[in-house]
Amino acid sequence: MSVKESPIPKLYQADEVEADPSELEQHPADAAEHIGGLDLTDQVKFIKQLPVKDAAQSIAEMDQHDQRILIKHLNPGLAARIVEEMAPDDATDLLEQLDESYRKNLLSRVPAQDRAELKTLLTFDPDTAGGVMNTDIVILDQDLTADDAINTLRKEVEDKEIPYYAYLVDEKDSLTGVVSLRDLLVARRGVMLKELVKTQHLITVSYNIDKEEVAKKIAHYNLLALPVVDFGNRLLGVVTVDDVIDIIHDEATEDMQTMVGAGADETTDSPVNFSVKKRLPWLIINVINSAVAAYVVHLFEPTISKMAILAALMHIVSNQAGNTGQQALAVMIRQLAVEKFDRKKAWLAVIRELKIGFINGFLISGGVLLLLLVVTQDVKLASCMGIALIFDMLVGALFGASIPLILKEIGRDPAQASSIFLTTITDAFGFWSFLGLAGWMLLG
Amino acid sequence: MSVKESPIPKLYQADEVEADPSELEQHPADAAEHIGGLDLTDQVKFIKQLPVKDAAQSIAEMDQHDQRILIKHLNPGLAARIVEEMAPDDATDLLEQLDESYRKNLLSRVPAQDRAELKTLLTFDPDTAGGVMNTDIVILDQDLTADDAINTLRKEVEDKEIPYYAYLVDEKDSLTGVVSLRDLLVARRGVMLKELVKTQHLITVSYNIDKEEVAKKIAHYNLLALPVVDFGNRLLGVVTVDDVIDIIHDEATEDMQTMVGAGADETTDSPVNFSVKKRLPWLIINVINSAVAAYVVHLFEPTISKMAILAALMHIVSNQAGNTGQQALAVMIRQLAVEKFDRKKAWLAVIRELKIGFINGFLISGGVLLLLLVVTQDVKLASCMGIALIFDMLVGALFGASIPLILKEIGRDPAQASSIFLTTITDAFGFWSFLGLAGWMLLG
Repeated sequence: MSVKESPIPKLYQADEVEADPSELEQHPADAAEHIGGLDLTDQVKFIKQLPVKDAAQSIAEMDQHDQRILIKHLNPGLAARIVEEMAPDDATDLLEQLDESYRKNLLSRVPAQDRAELKTLLTFDPDTAGGVMNTDIVILDQDLTADDAINTLRKEVEDKEIPYYAYLVDEKDSLTGVVSLRDLLVARRGVMLKELVKTQHLITVSYNIDKEEVAKKIAHYNLLALPVVDFGNRLLGVVTVDDVIDIIHDEATEDMQTMVGAGADETTDSPVNFSVKKRLPWLIINVINSAVAAYVVHLFEPTISKMAILAALMHIVSNQAGNTGQQALAVMIRQLAVEKFDRKKAWLAVIRELKIGFINGFLISGGVLLLLLVVTQDVKLASCMGIALIFDMLVGALFGASIPLILKEIGRDPAQASSIFLTTITDAFGFWSFLGLAGWMLLG
Repeated sequence: MSVKESPIPKLYQADEVEADPSELEQHPADAAEHIGGLDLTDQVKFIKQLPVKDAAQSIAEMDQHDQRILIKHLNPGLAARIVEEMAPDDATDLLEQLDESYRKNLLSRVPAQDRAELKTLLTFDPDTAGGVMNTDIVILDQDLTADDAINTLRKEVEDKEIPYYAYLVDEKDSLTGVVSLRDLLVARRGVMLKELVKTQHLITVSYNIDKEEVAKKIAHYNLLALPVVDFGNRLLGVVTVDDVIDIIHDEATEDMQTMVGAGADETTDSPVNFSVKKRLPWLIINVINSAVAAYVVHLFEPTISKMAILAALMHIVSNQAGNTGQQALAVMIRQLAVEKFDRKKAWLAVIRELKIGFINGFLISGGVLLLLLVVTQDVKLASCMGIALIFDMLVGALFGASIPLILKEIGRDPAQASSIFLTTITDAFGFWSFLGLAGWMLLG
């Protein structure tokens, strides 16, 4: 009986905490936070005084960047023991970040069986189901009885990460069903496991599916764990709901940050030069893009020289269209992130944004037109402004909604730098329409 | 033995699907998606032909807006039966959206016991732990033995939503511990439940805590379910990990959308006039804000009249600073969303952004300065541009990083319209610094 296991039942647990609770007074997640606040020397000291299992759990909870630095500063023997104690998926995540020679060094110190497993896991793309799955699962022969299964579980369950399910396989190792502890508990003792799962419609995922799709599937069906299979339906592992939370967190962060050209994996803890490297390329693209819009203004210099107020007003047009477009952009990117992609529905959403853009454009441009009329008494100037505003707000709605779709259709991340491209378009069209109209109507 | 329960073990389940599987060929989540694609008349038809339990599960999976419209178009008798069959937290979510008279009508048709429970749940703020918790949980007396507990569970577990845990209470109904089915399975049969939880450090949450904080806590500790208690530590319910996924989804969506002044709860399925109402106020504020920046330009009209190229170049300055600021903004908002708020760490992150802004500003403004020098041979113009660029990019970094913190400190949503405020500041400072410098150095 393991009364000393983690304080609250946890899904995700590298292993039971065998140590006396007083030795690990903190939950591994809290310990990880604590470690994050220490300088490197103290981090190493703290880890050394923990039982290896606790150290493994705590390091698994740290953020990747800190994790990598810390592990490099432990002696390889301890580091290897920590890797060995980690859940295989956490160990894989960690090993993936290390340079090849150090990874080989650590792996050579891990017992052969674990090493083989980790090497296999390392072959999967980290952004796929195979890259995030757990392999410490209970696999049962479907020809066992419920009674045998419970006895097997009693012996095996303590070493496993997902102790609420057992996966059934046939003689070819193909996955045939899933039973929960609860199913076993309420089943008649003599019933065969394969009888329990006869009517199951199994939901599985292939190992090469993108991890964001895996997250959507788990969220959609409210699953605790989703089995990962190969093309022959052989069970490889499972992705668990707690990993999905991390994926959803990461994916939301990615969208929001890449939209404006920040790094997908930046946090406020990232080193300054890491962030500079991620952002600088997009800032350079932004300079080039804004030079395009500036070139449009340049074409109208004679017009502006005659009537400098246009330079002030053109800014309102472009800014308003930019904001309209960004609203459409944000709604669209989130929709693509949350739902399964449905091409028809997605393009209908563009029509929807055009309608919203038209109504808001009509109201805003009408209001601005009237206001300008009252203030300047200049019918032509007010008309130019009104027409350019509604035109450019429609451009904003159209491109705000369609840029993520276009990026998606050409196989890119729908969020990547979308805000930068959008702004170029709304700026250029805004300047062109307003200055063009003004030149023609006011000075022509 | 319930071989007919849902295809894959699910955490979140209003009730067992008792009907023949052929009657509900779709998973409730898929049925909900199917219903979403039908027009209202067909939705009503589809729901009517489903067993009430399946109808309840499917409607619970629909999005709130569609859900509300559909339920209003069912006859109140059927609607009330569906509400009765739903998980209490789903039923509460649905009832909260209905107008008062219709809600009362439905509640009056629900059996007294369920009605009392729903009325209690409706008193909780929907954005708090109490508002998202489930109440169908297994509560056991801590003085039972493991053996008694398993027998109790075998009888009770089928009606409960969270069948993997049982919650232990003392004679005052205070929560004393949590045991999982697995704990019971591996326990000696005669051991008292309170012995099993003696060393537990219980993680709980008070009913009035914001749901986003609840989500952070569940994600932080990798919990499947978090008990919700009142101030006397009496158990009220639990928040489950699947609800957390929805909260994280919603919260990420909210941040991304409110940042640019779109509605927090908009989707591509929202009616056009709903989105117009949400966005128009912020577009109006954006007009006012961009008028401020336009006013700055207006002050420099004499300068621009003499040298219209400035109107083109000023746009590059403001745009570049805006992008720099948005990168800082996105990283900051995500950090505030994902982590527990730590004031000191947050303000240190502002310093970090200033460093990044300085390095990127130095490189970009240096590059632009050199390029302008080569193209225009005008040292003064190039210098104005370079100085204004680095100055405004620093302004962008400073305000991009601090606007979310300022909003947080004054008790507002850190994301709300932050991009709109930021742009006003970077535009105004960009125009002022560049046109001011140019007027002084080139024309002064």
